[in-house]
Amino acid sequence: MSTSTTVAPAIDRDDLVARHLPDLREAVDAARARSYHSRYSERITDPAYGDDPIAAGQADFEALQERGLRLDQPSTGERVAGERSPYGPTLAIDYPASDPAELVAAAKAAMPAWRDAGPDLRAALCVEILDRLGARAHELGQAVHHTTGQPLVMAFQAGGPHALDRGLEAVAYAWDVSTRHAASVTWEKPGKRPTIMEKRFHVVPRGVEVTIGCRTFPTWNGLPGIMASLATGNPVIIKPHPGAVLPLGLVVEVAQEVLGAAGFSPHLVTLATDTPDRPLAIELATNADVKLVDFTGSTTFGDWLEANATQAEVYTEKAGVNTIVVDGTDQAAAMFANLAFSFSLYSGQMCTTPQAVFVPRDGIDTDEGHLSFEQVGERIAAALEELLEPAKKGVEILGAIGDPSVVERIEEATGLGRVVAASTPLEHPAYPDAVVHTPLVVAVDAADADAWDTERFGPISFLVATDSTEHGLELVRDTVKRRGAITFAVYAGSDEVRAAATEVAMDAGVSASFDLHGSVFVNQTSAFSDFHATGANPAANASLVDDAFVASRFRVVETRWHA
Amino acid sequence: MSTSTTVAPAIDRDDLVARHLPDLREAVDAARARSYHSRYSERITDPAYGDDPIAAGQADFEALQERGLRLDQPSTGERVAGERSPYGPTLAIDYPASDPAELVAAAKAAMPAWRDAGPDLRAALCVEILDRLGARAHELGQAVHHTTGQPLVMAFQAGGPHALDRGLEAVAYAWDVSTRHAASVTWEKPGKRPTIMEKRFHVVPRGVEVTIGCRTFPTWNGLPGIMASLATGNPVIIKPHPGAVLPLGLVVEVAQEVLGAAGFSPHLVTLATDTPDRPLAIELATNADVKLVDFTGSTTFGDWLEANATQAEVYTEKAGVNTIVVDGTDQAAAMFANLAFSFSLYSGQMCTTPQAVFVPRDGIDTDEGHLSFEQVGERIAAALEELLEPAKKGVEILGAIGDPSVVERIEEATGLGRVVAASTPLEHPAYPDAVVHTPLVVAVDAADADAWDTERFGPISFLVATDSTEHGLELVRDTVKRRGAITFAVYAGSDEVRAAATEVAMDAGVSASFDLHGSVFVNQTSAFSDFHATGANPAANASLVDDAFVASRFRVVETRWHA
Repeated sequence: MSTSTTVAPAIDRDDLVARHLPDLREAVDAARARSYHSRYSERITDPAYGDDPIAAGQADFEALQERGLRLDQPSTGERVAGERSPYGPTLAIDYPASDPAELVAAAKAAMPAWRDAGPDLRAALCVEILDRLGARAHELGQAVHHTTGQPLVMAFQAGGPHALDRGLEAVAYAWDVSTRHAASVTWEKPGKRPTIMEKRFHVVPRGVEVTIGCRTFPTWNGLPGIMASLATGNPVIIKPHPGAVLPLGLVVEVAQEVLGAAGFSPHLVTLATDTPDRPLAIELATNADVKLVDFTGSTTFGDWLEANATQAEVYTEKAGVNTIVVDGTDQAAAMFANLAFSFSLYSGQMCTTPQAVFVPRDGIDTDEGHLSFEQVGERIAAALEELLEPAKKGVEILGAIGDPSVVERIEEATGLGRVVAASTPLEHPAYPDAVVHTPLVVAVDAADADAWDTERFGPISFLVATDSTEHGLELVRDTVKRRGAITFAVYAGSDEVRAAATEVAMDAGVSASFDLHGSVFVNQTSAFSDFHATGANPAANASLVDDAFVASRFRVVETRWHA
Repeated sequence: MSTSTTVAPAIDRDDLVARHLPDLREAVDAARARSYHSRYSERITDPAYGDDPIAAGQADFEALQERGLRLDQPSTGERVAGERSPYGPTLAIDYPASDPAELVAAAKAAMPAWRDAGPDLRAALCVEILDRLGARAHELGQAVHHTTGQPLVMAFQAGGPHALDRGLEAVAYAWDVSTRHAASVTWEKPGKRPTIMEKRFHVVPRGVEVTIGCRTFPTWNGLPGIMASLATGNPVIIKPHPGAVLPLGLVVEVAQEVLGAAGFSPHLVTLATDTPDRPLAIELATNADVKLVDFTGSTTFGDWLEANATQAEVYTEKAGVNTIVVDGTDQAAAMFANLAFSFSLYSGQMCTTPQAVFVPRDGIDTDEGHLSFEQVGERIAAALEELLEPAKKGVEILGAIGDPSVVERIEEATGLGRVVAASTPLEHPAYPDAVVHTPLVVAVDAADADAWDTERFGPISFLVATDSTEHGLELVRDTVKRRGAITFAVYAGSDEVRAAATEVAMDAGVSASFDLHGSVFVNQTSAFSDFHATGANPAANASLVDDAFVASRFRVVETRWHA
């Protein structure tokens, strides 16, 4: 179902603007109202994706590896390969290697025409890129599945429609903020002899943007920065994680196809592939002409970029320690099921997975009566078993682990306390080489901060015994301020606890979910309604997506003269 | 005409919101349309300021020095004095010295109640602060006159109404951006069983803000950051230049009066006065709890802050080399008069004063025929004479020079080329001790970059001989990118030159004024219509005032739960 052709038919610019801008206006309204909005269907079997979309997506994915990406960009001639699916197979595709300075030079050369295109046309072309990626969502889902290890349905949803909706949200904000000022005015200062000036306000880009992608959510975390930058006039160089090149490579292919068909240089969006002897992130991020950097990844490298890529505005999403405070519930069974799913989804390889669950050592009151601290642990273990057995069912939630250090961390964490739920290797029915582990849950005391107060990325959570709910909330306040956090949840027995938790959330700068049950999980946010990260604690210096995320990606240059 | 009283009458919060918010909405609309808007009259004799406002302002200024500022804030008990008017007199006022850590602690303690006040009430109180400063505009003008050395009319206008309008513009942007998202939503995701969530979006401040004021425009450059920060929920600590404490001290007095009368802690706005043995800027700007810094001053210290106050968002306005390209004109006399005024106003002690004027060495075509390079210099010299003689007239434009290094720079620059207009000391008819100098204009060749391509703050300009207009434009492009610039002007003989100059302006990131004559000068911008600085070149990393200036001063914390 690939819509890509070797020579893309020309795009009528005016027609595209007329078609996409009304939808974009709706998207802006939804983002401002924070109401439900989605352009790309998350139903994996939606007939919009064709008759047998999963099989077709698989076939497209195979064909894509065969033919390789259609890219038009400077290259050294060298080719780079080596992505290995966490499910086993090595991807049969390679990519051009490029010299960073040449990519930057090509991007700069392409910039003036893109600047002069103006916000409306740029936004319409960004929507077109997303739409064409949407038409290839199953192919994209396969690429995400086989690079990140996400289970297929999740890879399709999070890597396809949800990522595209986040990208659209970024376009909406960028378009809104960059068009909020009049493009021109006849200014008249009253007086006996009025002063009349003609003024023009030109939206100008900051310069070249570099996106440094992550392995786990290449499109979901990457598209907002890519789209916000492109929509505000900046050329984009995408430097994917070496283990997850293809999903962002597909973005580059489609972006070049659309830009080229509209008469713009394909060098506005290029792919920078690391070679084993030359990782490119530092070289690109510190290039004097690179003025914007979007990064998702480790705290260490994120902090380094913030301190060293000083010629650029740097937007980072790093790591943190996500927390939950359990004070009580009137839906105990639903709470445990919800927690078990949050621990398990994609083997806890999400920046939003809860790591420390604070429970009073005296236990909690629930609709099923008082539960001791130990009973809370038993119920979590039981909920995990219920969710993940048999293995055939479990792997559809857990996905696979691509990074061996995750497995090492599980082993290390096992010794840190009393094991409440052991991490068991599961055999994947379809992929015998896939590495799959159920979540580890370890009970520790709040005083064992060495255990729970260090980020341990992967299916590792701690049940932390506290003196009281208030004690748990104070630990949250402290750890969020020091370590950062993307998520925070509370199961509250009273309005007082919800109010106290809200106060902690505002003070520490982390968003909070209360009493989740059913199909909403603390690790998931919805584009247009939920902000992802706040930018107010050390886990991220930016939020996806708000005005602060887009407003500094362009500047306004004024010209004025007497009327 | 001071409206300040020892015990301010209580402010009715709801009433204040009802009164000020409609006006604020108008201000937002004007800012978005970039149309003419002003809340505070710039007419120095406007009856709104009373019957004999200049005399009354003088009397208020004397009385103020007598009584001292009414401040409520932590203090060491020590008092600091020593402001000396560039017109001679030493100001008879002293200020409390405070420990920076205590100011920050007091600010932090005041923050939660201010955060919880919400954007509407905060904005209304900011407007009220500005209005009460507006009622004391003449007193404020005197304070600016006798600290900065600006001529009185300018001190009144730029230090009073124009500064207050810029402050209002910042409140308008801050209020607009921080209320652009819904404060709450009932989110409904469609489906067989719809998912319904209640969500709240809390605007939370970044933390304590520190404004580091400059000597030349304490209120004009200070109020935007102060108001943008306060309106978005951040407490403000104002660290004025030791030579210009009083104007910002008045801002603190009035802000504390308003905040206190509305039931908020006066510690939300405090004054940090340097003592001779303890300058406070570095200590405050790098305090861990300080999350926003607004700075106006030298490039050296601005760059230092950007590199070292990494715990904060840092907004800087630094120095640059402002340029003019003269290609030709059909209003030669008006052009020379306009240039002469721009060189002279406040003795060139503006970050917007043109320094390098590029003129083709073969001369220019004008409505008065061809003028050689030498003739252009002669006409500028004649226009300066016409403008500034006799001295009684001249001092009302030149003001006085407070910083002895300005005079040293004039002497140094005199030797750098052929003197076109000599800098002459003028005797001030009213203040014999005032240091007054007419502008120096020196002719050099474009190759003498050591002369014109270094910022020389003060009444120092260069007439730079170029090969052609194109050559001049390329020099502008280059120097703006390297040195930065706040202003750029062109006298263009053709539309082609205007188009080429626009391209240079967009590329280098500096705003451009074309063919100014009459009462609009390149060194002046109007709030709500003209942006001051672009943030796109090294002279400033921010613009006064746009969305980027306010959008990162707050974050949004979300709470959500099942409906």
